[in-house]
Amino acid sequence: MTTELLERLRADVGTDAVMTDDDVMGSYSRDMMPLAPSGQPLAVVMPRDVEGVQACVRACADTGVPIVPRGAGSGLTGAANAIDGCVVLVTTRLNEIVEIDAANRLAVVQPGVVNLDFRESVSKRGLFYPPDPSSYDWCTIGGNLATNAGGLCCVKYGVTTDSVLGLEVVLADGSLLRTGRRTVKGVAGYDLAKLFIGSEGTLGVITQATVSLRPLPQAPSTLVASFAGTEAAGDAVRRIVGEGLVPSLMEIMDASSIAAAEDYLRTDLGTGDDCQALLLCQTDSGGEVARREITALEQMCADAGATMTYSTDDLAEGNMLLEARRVVLTALEMYGTWLTDDVAVPRTRIAELISGCQRISEEVGLRVAVVGHAGDGNMHPTIVYDPADPDETARAHRAFDDILTVGLSLGGTVTGEHGIGKIKQDWLEREIGPVGMRVHRQIKAALDPHNLFNPNSMFSLREPATAGESVTAG
Amino acid sequence: MTTELLERLRADVGTDAVMTDDDVMGSYSRDMMPLAPSGQPLAVVMPRDVEGVQACVRACADTGVPIVPRGAGSGLTGAANAIDGCVVLVTTRLNEIVEIDAANRLAVVQPGVVNLDFRESVSKRGLFYPPDPSSYDWCTIGGNLATNAGGLCCVKYGVTTDSVLGLEVVLADGSLLRTGRRTVKGVAGYDLAKLFIGSEGTLGVITQATVSLRPLPQAPSTLVASFAGTEAAGDAVRRIVGEGLVPSLMEIMDASSIAAAEDYLRTDLGTGDDCQALLLCQTDSGGEVARREITALEQMCADAGATMTYSTDDLAEGNMLLEARRVVLTALEMYGTWLTDDVAVPRTRIAELISGCQRISEEVGLRVAVVGHAGDGNMHPTIVYDPADPDETARAHRAFDDILTVGLSLGGTVTGEHGIGKIKQDWLEREIGPVGMRVHRQIKAALDPHNLFNPNSMFSLREPATAGESVTAG
Repeated sequence: MTTELLERLRADVGTDAVMTDDDVMGSYSRDMMPLAPSGQPLAVVMPRDVEGVQACVRACADTGVPIVPRGAGSGLTGAANAIDGCVVLVTTRLNEIVEIDAANRLAVVQPGVVNLDFRESVSKRGLFYPPDPSSYDWCTIGGNLATNAGGLCCVKYGVTTDSVLGLEVVLADGSLLRTGRRTVKGVAGYDLAKLFIGSEGTLGVITQATVSLRPLPQAPSTLVASFAGTEAAGDAVRRIVGEGLVPSLMEIMDASSIAAAEDYLRTDLGTGDDCQALLLCQTDSGGEVARREITALEQMCADAGATMTYSTDDLAEGNMLLEARRVVLTALEMYGTWLTDDVAVPRTRIAELISGCQRISEEVGLRVAVVGHAGDGNMHPTIVYDPADPDETARAHRAFDDILTVGLSLGGTVTGEHGIGKIKQDWLEREIGPVGMRVHRQIKAALDPHNLFNPNSMFSLREPATAGESVTAG
Repeated sequence: MTTELLERLRADVGTDAVMTDDDVMGSYSRDMMPLAPSGQPLAVVMPRDVEGVQACVRACADTGVPIVPRGAGSGLTGAANAIDGCVVLVTTRLNEIVEIDAANRLAVVQPGVVNLDFRESVSKRGLFYPPDPSSYDWCTIGGNLATNAGGLCCVKYGVTTDSVLGLEVVLADGSLLRTGRRTVKGVAGYDLAKLFIGSEGTLGVITQATVSLRPLPQAPSTLVASFAGTEAAGDAVRRIVGEGLVPSLMEIMDASSIAAAEDYLRTDLGTGDDCQALLLCQTDSGGEVARREITALEQMCADAGATMTYSTDDLAEGNMLLEARRVVLTALEMYGTWLTDDVAVPRTRIAELISGCQRISEEVGLRVAVVGHAGDGNMHPTIVYDPADPDETARAHRAFDDILTVGLSLGGTVTGEHGIGKIKQDWLEREIGPVGMRVHRQIKAALDPHNLFNPNSMFSLREPATAGESVTAG
């Protein structure tokens, strides 16, 4: 049957689209999350067009072989990790920007287009596609859609779902769903596009998106502020949000992140010895408005007790200041392997989350560096450990979970932008409860009754039998 | 069985919550769309709390009596119209603003709160809830959520779904789904909140929403521009959108709307005899930015050939200028009953839609006045007719349909913000096609397998048997 499936895939999708070499399969078996399990695929299939995706889905559906859809593999939850005997369906060859309609401020794009390439293409037309996950220079639009990716600028412009007008999706029977629209507004039926966005490859394969674009913003002005304690930095965020200021970027770094960045860049960030937290803000309003916003942000930071503030309208200097934030994960690799968590809390609770992470770091005896999108409360506490050391690995896992516990206790969510994937299934259940899980299973069973797409990722289709219930053959 | 159900409803929801008087039932049997069919309900039930909603749903589920959920009844598609033998479940008594969390810029609100009351309550805290359907002074948040309502300011701030973080929904078995979050970002599981928003009461009863709020904008500056032809007005919209200008309001009125408003207000709008279209714009950016935006808008209108432009920073004067737009539907009542359509087209095609409506008006021999949200291409061509005259009524229906045909032919949607309800089911199918319809039916069957909620509104659960297929007992 395996041979038959491979033959059919080669015939229907194309010989060069079907790969079974161990090397190739190995490189398409995992994303960027070391914690997540992965298996040995049967084949990697890389269709060139929507008909190829449909043919692949139909062949797998007919033979009962599960499909794990994937883009570039920049994910951080193992959602795109292979399972044993699956077909990994890679969408990177569907990489055409089909249309940029500047007059209506929209574009039609295939899933394999790299986020950065798309941003650059529309910016040449004076337009702006906001979602900018940290991996924007290599992640693809398809993965962004499947995970409802966020990024640095969502504090002002929202996440991926906020930019999507319509989708094309290959469903579990191989049929092609066209949903959504080309108009700014539209309420014809259920908002199916937003159901597929963030469904992490469990409901279908996205083969095209129509997205809305914004006018290109002005070059940003940048502010950096240092604080002698995380509480003061958290207070600055509270004041900024409470005043109704909406910067286009507002990032926070804790002491551990600052130290790592300074080590890596072999520089003193000029923040002084008493710097326990850095806040980095940008505004892209331009001109006198930007100056007014930067002044107001600076004042809020000073009111919260900032020990230093520095602002600049110079783009290159602003980018240099942001470099400290951008290098943190790379810098942490000096000390070991990193494992980055993803938790969002109400914006008033950021300092409490960071303190909680510092406590957890001491408890498990591992470095935990917190960077995050302070403007929307989405923090990425990052644990450094040695995966060759089973004890350290166990402590890293414990820290990962403890951080989520703290996040939930602060009224937060167990994932702000990375998703559930193959590492947080239990946490999804803990966050949304049994009724929410039942609705998930009902929708999955309705759209993918044979559990073809990414089975057991995000959640299991089968509800676990609870105490007092027994499963018997009718 | 009917008696038993009524007794159970009185026992479980409360005696004063169950009404069977013909007068009461009559006043809760219809919304504002004259075209839509309505039936005779068994009872009107008005629970005071979520437990009452759950009890009502369970009682109806147990007895197989369908539920039509409804808010204030300001809808324009008959979605809230009663069907024979149903329970009309009215959510207006769940009318508490549960919480306004200014520090995190969010609020928790029950469905029965009137949009205007909610807006005013949050504005006292310096905050802004954008969705502003025309009926904002009497429609409720619950109906806004169920229809994903738009309004005048969505050109800048989006529609209802863009402001929602989380929902509580009573499902078809009476269980309570809590979905979404209190954080700005979150991707834990499917985006169920956005699935229920706009589902027009077919999937559950929304009993609470957590919504994000914005900083209160500045008092608006207003611009009015008149044009000798709709093509010139459409060209102005194209230029404004193409330049990347985002006004907080941009409304268009055609010659027929202008004439009606002038008749009603017994005034000359000062636009002169050659005025075939008016464009009304506002910006709420305040100060010098607003002045710059108004100047740019004025220039775009002039470039497109405006015969007159006038702008003001004065709030009262701005409101007076907008009055002409606001009174159009009331003004049309001088000539007969109005039937308002709702179609959205790409913003470059507005003039073509208006011309199409003028052609249809001539063809059917009825007044058709077009007003619309030009900033997002959402037009409301409004047909005036005499419902006592069967021939006029038939022609009005024909015009209603012909307008949708033109909208679709321009790449538009058959509903920009009113919904499908009980008048556009065929049009939904025409717009989204058989695959989209199948997915709708699959989701409905999964979440509401016994078709309890608003059956046959939006679409029928049962797929029509097509030629060549026969339905036989297995």
